[in-house]
Amino acid sequence: MKLPPKRTTWISSTIAGGNRPAEADDPFEELDEQEDAPAAEASPSDLADDLAELLSDSQVSRLDEVLATHATDKWYASHPPDVVVFAESTDDVAKVLTYAYERGIPVTTRGAGVGYVGGCVPVEGGIALSLARMTRILELNPADGVAVVQPGVITGDLQKAARELGWDYPPDPASLKECSLGGNIATNAGGPRCLKYGVTRNYVLGLEVVLADGRIVSCGGRVHKNKTGFDLVGLFTGSEGMLGIVTTATLRLIPRPPCRAMLAAVFPEFAAAAGAVQGILNSGHLPSALEITDGFTLAAARNRLGADRLPDGNAHLIVEVDGRPRAVASEIEELEELLTTLGATRIDRADTEEACEAIWQLRREFSYSLRDTGLTKLNEDIVVPRSQLVELVAFARQLEQETGIAVACFGHAGDGNIHTNLMVADYHDPSTRATADAALDRLFSWVLDHGGAITGEHGVGLAKKPWIHQALGETGLDVHQALKDALDPDRILNPGKFLD
Amino acid sequence: MKLPPKRTTWISSTIAGGNRPAEADDPFEELDEQEDAPAAEASPSDLADDLAELLSDSQVSRLDEVLATHATDKWYASHPPDVVVFAESTDDVAKVLTYAYERGIPVTTRGAGVGYVGGCVPVEGGIALSLARMTRILELNPADGVAVVQPGVITGDLQKAARELGWDYPPDPASLKECSLGGNIATNAGGPRCLKYGVTRNYVLGLEVVLADGRIVSCGGRVHKNKTGFDLVGLFTGSEGMLGIVTTATLRLIPRPPCRAMLAAVFPEFAAAAGAVQGILNSGHLPSALEITDGFTLAAARNRLGADRLPDGNAHLIVEVDGRPRAVASEIEELEELLTTLGATRIDRADTEEACEAIWQLRREFSYSLRDTGLTKLNEDIVVPRSQLVELVAFARQLEQETGIAVACFGHAGDGNIHTNLMVADYHDPSTRATADAALDRLFSWVLDHGGAITGEHGVGLAKKPWIHQALGETGLDVHQALKDALDPDRILNPGKFLD
Repeated sequence: MKLPPKRTTWISSTIAGGNRPAEADDPFEELDEQEDAPAAEASPSDLADDLAELLSDSQVSRLDEVLATHATDKWYASHPPDVVVFAESTDDVAKVLTYAYERGIPVTTRGAGVGYVGGCVPVEGGIALSLARMTRILELNPADGVAVVQPGVITGDLQKAARELGWDYPPDPASLKECSLGGNIATNAGGPRCLKYGVTRNYVLGLEVVLADGRIVSCGGRVHKNKTGFDLVGLFTGSEGMLGIVTTATLRLIPRPPCRAMLAAVFPEFAAAAGAVQGILNSGHLPSALEITDGFTLAAARNRLGADRLPDGNAHLIVEVDGRPRAVASEIEELEELLTTLGATRIDRADTEEACEAIWQLRREFSYSLRDTGLTKLNEDIVVPRSQLVELVAFARQLEQETGIAVACFGHAGDGNIHTNLMVADYHDPSTRATADAALDRLFSWVLDHGGAITGEHGVGLAKKPWIHQALGETGLDVHQALKDALDPDRILNPGKFLD
Repeated sequence: MKLPPKRTTWISSTIAGGNRPAEADDPFEELDEQEDAPAAEASPSDLADDLAELLSDSQVSRLDEVLATHATDKWYASHPPDVVVFAESTDDVAKVLTYAYERGIPVTTRGAGVGYVGGCVPVEGGIALSLARMTRILELNPADGVAVVQPGVITGDLQKAARELGWDYPPDPASLKECSLGGNIATNAGGPRCLKYGVTRNYVLGLEVVLADGRIVSCGGRVHKNKTGFDLVGLFTGSEGMLGIVTTATLRLIPRPPCRAMLAAVFPEFAAAAGAVQGILNSGHLPSALEITDGFTLAAARNRLGADRLPDGNAHLIVEVDGRPRAVASEIEELEELLTTLGATRIDRADTEEACEAIWQLRREFSYSLRDTGLTKLNEDIVVPRSQLVELVAFARQLEQETGIAVACFGHAGDGNIHTNLMVADYHDPSTRATADAALDRLFSWVLDHGGAITGEHGVGLAKKPWIHQALGETGLDVHQALKDALDPDRILNPGKFLD
């Protein structure tokens, strides 16, 4: 990389100065070491002026409320940037990065801000670069099977637009009505239908990326197969804003499966439902979704919804199949018979779109009913090998007994991606938090010891940073750092996360 | 990366000395510059002795016939290594790389040696590191939906073993009976069924990789979703032996679709067949394969097979669907009606395994019939946006008329991945070769101008090296070089390919 030399050293006022927010804690401790660094030549207000001149006044803000909304995501950590910039084009992003790179100013990119791990929290201050105004679907092209989008497009909007043409963009994170495609790409987002359709990465054909130094690189393209060089598209996808900033994405669309049908089955015990997951797959079925829910969650759901909608049983399994109408009709019948054989005590079947939506709504109610408990839900998107589902839930019960923290498990059983929710009273209370953190330590160690992953779809961000070393190992972390050093040698892109 | 310092400089005898083979040509010209470098401390026979001591006598060879078989792949370029090493374990690979890294000795890794682009030709001599003895399927685990394999396992052998358990490993390169999974991973191999099932990358969950300096890194794992850090699995997959050496792979298996059916349709003109491809996808079908063949290839096939097996018509389309038996039965019926509407003049339908195999055999005969012409087939695995299929074939006809070189097009229409074969008399004849190279130049320029890719499944190797700069662009190439420098700073892994 031929990168221009850095001209000045930037120290964020929010680090060097005194306006660190009260809730700043562990993730930021290490930043204190930097307070001895020489003061920056430019101040935050100079910075805002410079950026307003580079772009326009309406694209730059230092208003308190704007800084505050760009300080956090859906996780609890918070740290304000020095300035928020609203990019409206690739050129804007390139200008901001060229400027920031020359001065060593941190740039933390932000999409819709609905991440679950603090990934877009600008922990070192500097520039929060919002792509929320880059909301254009530039092209929807069934003949090529692609959509070309700006990163601020809301995932659900693309899905809707594609479906209106009889095509589909399959990735379906739970937050699809509010999350952006740029954020999905940054975290390689998943969702229930990954079992059959794969994660976001499987739908990214091409990316336009602005590098740390402001140069623009195109990788991949609009073709459905491409072996030209290394997989840069894959490297930038899921890189959580630490290697480059995606400004345009070419996404793969598939012909929309014209029909779907679902089953919602209750089982007496979790082990029977997990066994049914294996039984379904072993019988040669590849459903579009296989969602499992444990007894704790079901109990909470019964409180919210009434026992008639969820009769007795310690586990719930949702099966969705999609495809041609006649194919779906025959497969759902086969699956209903199979589930009965496999021990389901009640099966609700959905043959229409409305009935399917009602089952997915029930699934969403499970989440809401956990919220009804009044506890804070620490939602850990861990993944285990599919054979370990029963062991995971048994471990969750054990953890619950030993720590007094309730643990609710539900999620994408086909992938082994079970959202394991530690339900704590008040995570800001130091004593509760110490107990919860110790429980998380045990959970992640157990997951890693059992061949699992500490994050399946949310990313590392700040939330999983304490466990990344254990997860990647020494050499794995070295390789990550080498890649980071290669593409962002002055660490201006989303600094303070899991790499130096 | 904390890499140990390099102790000596290695210059291959095949570069510094006089035993360059007669067929060495363009790809090696630049190597002449290195002849002035200081002589190495170690000689090739010292090298062999050292390696035999590190591993064992039976794992190291300098026999002429062994060097010769490790000098080339299915492409025409050839250059012998100084020594061939047969690794039998990860530990062997780590020992060889640690040794080579300290001395700056080139290491070119080799699987089954059936690549089409000279990717495993050791153009700078040194060590040819064969993984052909690492042939163990370490685990087949339907409960986790994974297979764990050594890199020398033949792709077809894994497929067969998985199918015997009712599971499947979908990637199906044409060479699957002789190619190895390590080679598939190195080139991110494709095949006809990628339209529905995706390329090799989509099935690689975890890799054990030996880095240039001999350290071993594990990335990914046996879980089906994993967002722990950057996508190292994706970066190593398709990296053509230039970033690390894969010693174990954990691959995703899917429940085997219990049934398939096929249609083989003849169309009067190529445009009608390409239109049918769009019509099928636009009707919400996602076949497991959509293979198209042009008039030139069909004419050659008629010569080989007789006109009765292939009646008049300038295009041929194969459609395969798979899934549950009743689903397949109803979908193939729908597709047959659709193809009639879309202008097919003859449709052969295959409802049984045997009949399907007969259609695939016919498809293979198309390749053989090109061979029957006695011409050398320059098989270019280019990809175009799906909407450009007709334009590609029209361009091929134009190229044919203007250069006198026949061009045969057939391949994976659903992906736009059309094998475009320039049929030349004798590629070793300088004049013919100059004409052919000029035609390839025009072909690749046309492909890139039309949003396509110069390789869809074979990789870059030596064959596509002349066009890689044009394909990746200046910044794209810079990023590749930065990644290479990060992971293999002394360029010992497969040197002489498209990166310095």
